[in-house]
Amino acid sequence: MDTFSPTRPLDHVADFPAIPEGWAYLDTAATAQKPQAVINAIARGYSETYATVHRGVYQRSSEMTLAFEASRRRVARFIGAPSSDEVIFVRGATEGINLVAQSWGGANLQPGDRIMLSMLEHHSNIVPWQLIAERTGATIDVAPLTEDGRIDLDAMADILTARHRIVALAHVSNVLGSVLDAKRAAALAHSVGALLLLDGCQAVPRLPVDVADLGCDFYVFSGHKLYGPTGIGVLWGRAELLAAMPPWQGGGAMIDRVSFAGTTYAPPPARFEPGTPHVVGVLGLEAAVDYVESIGVEAISAHENALVREARDALSSINSLRVFGPEDSAGIISFALEGVHPHDIGTILDESRVAIRAGHHCAQPLMAHLGVDATARASFGVYNGRRDIEALVRGIERVTRIFG
Amino acid sequence: MDTFSPTRPLDHVADFPAIPEGWAYLDTAATAQKPQAVINAIARGYSETYATVHRGVYQRSSEMTLAFEASRRRVARFIGAPSSDEVIFVRGATEGINLVAQSWGGANLQPGDRIMLSMLEHHSNIVPWQLIAERTGATIDVAPLTEDGRIDLDAMADILTARHRIVALAHVSNVLGSVLDAKRAAALAHSVGALLLLDGCQAVPRLPVDVADLGCDFYVFSGHKLYGPTGIGVLWGRAELLAAMPPWQGGGAMIDRVSFAGTTYAPPPARFEPGTPHVVGVLGLEAAVDYVESIGVEAISAHENALVREARDALSSINSLRVFGPEDSAGIISFALEGVHPHDIGTILDESRVAIRAGHHCAQPLMAHLGVDATARASFGVYNGRRDIEALVRGIERVTRIFG
Repeated sequence: MDTFSPTRPLDHVADFPAIPEGWAYLDTAATAQKPQAVINAIARGYSETYATVHRGVYQRSSEMTLAFEASRRRVARFIGAPSSDEVIFVRGATEGINLVAQSWGGANLQPGDRIMLSMLEHHSNIVPWQLIAERTGATIDVAPLTEDGRIDLDAMADILTARHRIVALAHVSNVLGSVLDAKRAAALAHSVGALLLLDGCQAVPRLPVDVADLGCDFYVFSGHKLYGPTGIGVLWGRAELLAAMPPWQGGGAMIDRVSFAGTTYAPPPARFEPGTPHVVGVLGLEAAVDYVESIGVEAISAHENALVREARDALSSINSLRVFGPEDSAGIISFALEGVHPHDIGTILDESRVAIRAGHHCAQPLMAHLGVDATARASFGVYNGRRDIEALVRGIERVTRIFG
Repeated sequence: MDTFSPTRPLDHVADFPAIPEGWAYLDTAATAQKPQAVINAIARGYSETYATVHRGVYQRSSEMTLAFEASRRRVARFIGAPSSDEVIFVRGATEGINLVAQSWGGANLQPGDRIMLSMLEHHSNIVPWQLIAERTGATIDVAPLTEDGRIDLDAMADILTARHRIVALAHVSNVLGSVLDAKRAAALAHSVGALLLLDGCQAVPRLPVDVADLGCDFYVFSGHKLYGPTGIGVLWGRAELLAAMPPWQGGGAMIDRVSFAGTTYAPPPARFEPGTPHVVGVLGLEAAVDYVESIGVEAISAHENALVREARDALSSINSLRVFGPEDSAGIISFALEGVHPHDIGTILDESRVAIRAGHHCAQPLMAHLGVDATARASFGVYNGRRDIEALVRGIERVTRIFG
């Protein structure tokens, strides 16, 4: 793991053709850059092996179907899914949560039922539940946060009741980097008979994830945040839950038999994958999983933890800078500079070739909780190193001079 | 247009790296192969210009946002949409139809309301309506077909009533290639106060499409059938309809303001595009539109019409072969050989390096109407020529010898 220490030059940045020398890309929590191996897999999918899946009677299509289903097994192994039939390819985490909310929620939620979220959720883990709550008459509760910005599971335990049917929480906060104690969250949810859905968008690129070990019931993540292509993501669900869920979107490939007298549906995962899938996106996602595992998720985790420590230390030396979130956040740091709007921080940093995000990060309830409209956020990936943190700090010092 | 005649060697096949010399790819109605220009656009999107859209405060993200929105305008012009705000990027035509069924249908359909489909629809234009009909209490009617396999608009006119709220029809049949008289369908739908949705999956790659001129209300198509990437498609809807439709999927980017007290939504198209979009898919779709227009849709149409005539002539000389659908079908021919299962035709043709599709083509009601379980289908694209038809006919003659 020596070569992966942030204090030494990283070689992984060389794997990423879209990161030019001297550009500090610190917006991986929005989307990760792509290694050449992923780009090559995508290009190969279109220029050598392209065909549709599941339908063709010719060899090219059979081979593509085998490759596509092998990718599903690869993804299943990566997240510790007991069966690849539990892996549903969706457009991204957002669609995965909407699928659970509308299919499982539409079939199971009744007036008086309750849904537990938290104050730090991304809009993608709030709005789908609001839409289904409105349709079904269910009610949403909000778990509060600890002072340092974690989901307060003690407080959540006090709120949970037998009327709670599902708990849906971020495994890692996209704003604060706070890591959920997912096993405890699962135990708490299950203790009242509720299910646990985890939004793993920020966790899967940063932490070893084993859904069986975590004990959750649904898990979602997006490929593009895991160094993979856009337009592809994963919903994992326990087999018996998926088997009992009604179809959400109708179309080809998800049916058993269609007639105007009545249609019957295929078992999962096909039931939830109508239409021609994002075939090449799935191949690209497999290449991304291969890439991440070639470095090792444990190594990535250690690397990003080291970067976070280093960044927090460096930033704490800047007067008037406030860092949000817990000390041991995973790869993501939000901060504010007194008297400077985060957008101005972002714009001035961009002049110094440092790319961060500034805004509400699709987490407006959390912003309200923090008492701000927006934060500046730096987030890390396998291509970042100490040089990026130095560039960030130099850039912020320039901001303070401009506004000082 | 001379160089595009099927009777001369085509140069366009050289644009397609995944079509090796001597392979007759006749499954374009399932998915089109990709020209190098599209593959290059995708690779460039990941390896040179990659960033998220709509959110970043740094230059790379601003530039990607500009490119993304320019693609939306390009697509709008391509289909004659009055405004690019009417163009919603979806995963494919299937998702587009589900979006209309669940958002528009969920808000507007009531018990006693009626939905008009036809006997030749793809499952993607049947099952979404069955799902929303079940939820809302609406009823589905089915327009019959003429003897030669067109949607019988005279018969449909007799069935339409003031209780019909929407008519949803294939612009071109994916099995028979039958071309709908879309203007007349629009006039008929509107005469009873119903809307018209057109499934343009097989039309957009084969015919000039101008949604304003057609007079329809919704139009959907998939990028991967238009020589573009997988995982991307388009829903076009009239601005005032989209503006009145409630959100379907919740998430980031589709909101105005989120709070647990109540959430407000962005105007279209953002309202219907939750989460990080398939950014590079959109860039690839634009490149596909550029490619198609560089040849000219009129020229493609003439080319495929000529191929269909030539293929029908050649096939009609084979004893025991039955061709389905109208004489003037667009780029798609379904056929059967007496006493030979279509899958066997497909498998034996594959040995001769001819790729066709055999099956129910996600149109089981049409199969029942035709009195078959499956058909063999050959479908054409810009890379096909007389040599492919000759290979098809030679292959079928071999099938008849094997089974004869």
